[in-house]
Amino acid sequence: MKILVQKFGGTSVANLECMKKVREKVIAGLENGYKMVIILSARAGDTNKLLALADEWSATPDPAECDALVATGEQVSITLFSMLLKDAGIKARSMLGFQLPIITDDTFGQARIRSIDSDAMITAFKDYDVLVIAGFQGCTENKRITTLGRGGSDTSAVAVAAALGSVECEIYTDVEGVYTTDPNLCSSAQKMTKISYDEMLEMASMGAKVLHIRSVEFAKKYKVPVRVRSTFSDNPGTLVTQEDSTMEAVLVSGIAYDKDQSRVTLRGVPDKPGIAATIFGPLSERGVLVDMIIQNVSLDGDTTDMTFTISRKELDKALAICEDIRHDIGIEEILHDDNVAKVSAIGVGMRNHSGVAARAFAALQQEGINIMMISTSEIKITILIQEKYLELAVRILHDAFGLDWDIG
Amino acid sequence: MKILVQKFGGTSVANLECMKKVREKVIAGLENGYKMVIILSARAGDTNKLLALADEWSATPDPAECDALVATGEQVSITLFSMLLKDAGIKARSMLGFQLPIITDDTFGQARIRSIDSDAMITAFKDYDVLVIAGFQGCTENKRITTLGRGGSDTSAVAVAAALGSVECEIYTDVEGVYTTDPNLCSSAQKMTKISYDEMLEMASMGAKVLHIRSVEFAKKYKVPVRVRSTFSDNPGTLVTQEDSTMEAVLVSGIAYDKDQSRVTLRGVPDKPGIAATIFGPLSERGVLVDMIIQNVSLDGDTTDMTFTISRKELDKALAICEDIRHDIGIEEILHDDNVAKVSAIGVGMRNHSGVAARAFAALQQEGINIMMISTSEIKITILIQEKYLELAVRILHDAFGLDWDIG
Repeated sequence: MKILVQKFGGTSVANLECMKKVREKVIAGLENGYKMVIILSARAGDTNKLLALADEWSATPDPAECDALVATGEQVSITLFSMLLKDAGIKARSMLGFQLPIITDDTFGQARIRSIDSDAMITAFKDYDVLVIAGFQGCTENKRITTLGRGGSDTSAVAVAAALGSVECEIYTDVEGVYTTDPNLCSSAQKMTKISYDEMLEMASMGAKVLHIRSVEFAKKYKVPVRVRSTFSDNPGTLVTQEDSTMEAVLVSGIAYDKDQSRVTLRGVPDKPGIAATIFGPLSERGVLVDMIIQNVSLDGDTTDMTFTISRKELDKALAICEDIRHDIGIEEILHDDNVAKVSAIGVGMRNHSGVAARAFAALQQEGINIMMISTSEIKITILIQEKYLELAVRILHDAFGLDWDIG
Repeated sequence: MKILVQKFGGTSVANLECMKKVREKVIAGLENGYKMVIILSARAGDTNKLLALADEWSATPDPAECDALVATGEQVSITLFSMLLKDAGIKARSMLGFQLPIITDDTFGQARIRSIDSDAMITAFKDYDVLVIAGFQGCTENKRITTLGRGGSDTSAVAVAAALGSVECEIYTDVEGVYTTDPNLCSSAQKMTKISYDEMLEMASMGAKVLHIRSVEFAKKYKVPVRVRSTFSDNPGTLVTQEDSTMEAVLVSGIAYDKDQSRVTLRGVPDKPGIAATIFGPLSERGVLVDMIIQNVSLDGDTTDMTFTISRKELDKALAICEDIRHDIGIEEILHDDNVAKVSAIGVGMRNHSGVAARAFAALQQEGINIMMISTSEIKITILIQEKYLELAVRILHDAFGLDWDIG
């Protein structure tokens, strides 16, 4: 039995016309001899409407009740789509999270999948050719409905593909695939034919927004081949898969960026063991998500400077927390800047090649772009710059690493 | 543990303001020392909106998918209401049909309850004081979602009360209780304090519309005391319960009526065994619901007349079916009339008292109302009259049986 998993997001199932386009994809899969598993999100806007209801009813909506409320969005889309398939003479049925079941932990609103029973799907394939499964939702051991957090339908799709023996999982979206950088910023951006899980993880966390990051982690763990493609064309899209030698031959595979950055610098912080925990503990406790952290080497042996970046909307909160701890710790000065942005070069090829960072710095310097912070990982170099230079920096790096031709 | 079951319909949970009124009822119950089970319908209008969606998506919506779609209406109302209870510091949780579970057969759209697991409720009462349960829905043994048909939330409430040991079940609605007749037709109509299950069944089938008929059958079978009362007052309402001696002392307890009637008479039907089946078989097969049936004694020994009543919207269909079988059977003439209405006097007291029918006929005759058909059961006399006399007939019978004072 050949099985193909396809996932369609909210804009793909927004209305009857859109769903009819999705049905064509399903029919094409059936004609190619597949049994199909279709994972759907709620219709565009439905989830937000339900969340708005919860906020109208309660200042602090109970998370468990909120999940059971919001889960109705997918219940509506999968039942409507199943009706549409049946009307075309296709043997199809809807399946909710509790019906499979997709068992999760009980972190309502942000639940993690623990197990998926593939037996129920295999059994259902005796009577049906298409199973239309609600994305984004699962249930606890005690049968309470949970949701997986924003973008969780991608994770549902990959997890179901993993449970079925790591069959291919197609994630349909409104773009043609994964690009070397944002085509809106850089007209020479190229669609990639293939990308490794690790590269995709770095792209996703930089706001590439094509795939939910947890779905990529899941895909990597269970080696599920994921194809990102468009609902509105027949382009084969981009395959996210295991690293291979062709990928390693390429130094940098993509340039990502993030505009939603602000920088806080704590000057004159006592340079003693445990100081980082004293600063970042309170930030974490109050829900501030810190992105880059840089601590300079102490020059005088007594004090050091600590710089970190955060999302702009959390700047005020972060500054207030820093003020709270300022005297206890003995911070000399608190500086901040919210006109900053982050640009990254990503590629598994960096593991085996030196000089990538130097090439990036040189390219930016040549155009007079000042580098404010640098942070590197095994397959990524991230540079913080003034926001006004962002578009220019993306194009410079894209050119510098020869991404303006199709690397597929 | 004292348990009270309360059911609120769609108008009682239509919006936030309404739900806050419902919350007051729940708080009052808690203050009286009860653990509470609250059964809710979908918010007014939601079910119709969902059914309209199904009709937009499919000319013939798949019944199983339609049930899973429509069941989201109650999922929304119970989660929102649970949030509201939690906000008031009440330990509450929502429970869906599959979570209890309420097991039904697989007649989607019109499922019948097979069993309800009260253990889940008793266990939940260790952690919660209020369980907010979705009315109208259940699930099959295979975990597919079912609905119980229009008005099914009443049945859910009574069935849950039965499962919990036939505790009292309060059905909240927008009227103060069950009246001796329609107050809109007869200003002297009185609210009853008590009514027997059998009387209520006869009232309900005549369109009294206060309680869904299957819920009354359920209540009778499991001896669940059901109290019909208003969400918007503190009136104790009407208790529907087992027959007792005070009820039997009253000859007639209520006057019901039904305007949606039309009459078909088949003249000159051969008077031979099996003739009724030959006529009513085809009607039943094509979904025509026949109400009253009267066959006169044959006068000539060869032919007889057969008269039956049906809902007006089915008159054309019924006439067409009669034409189809006319020649095979040898019916002389097919007559019909759609300006007819039905009025009934109902009371368990009739079982032990004679003369009720005579008193009814005399009262109508005195006002010159012609009786077209008569049909009697153990506790009901039904009379078919011209529609224009209906309001008058209701008032005459109400007076004739002394219902214009409170019978409580």
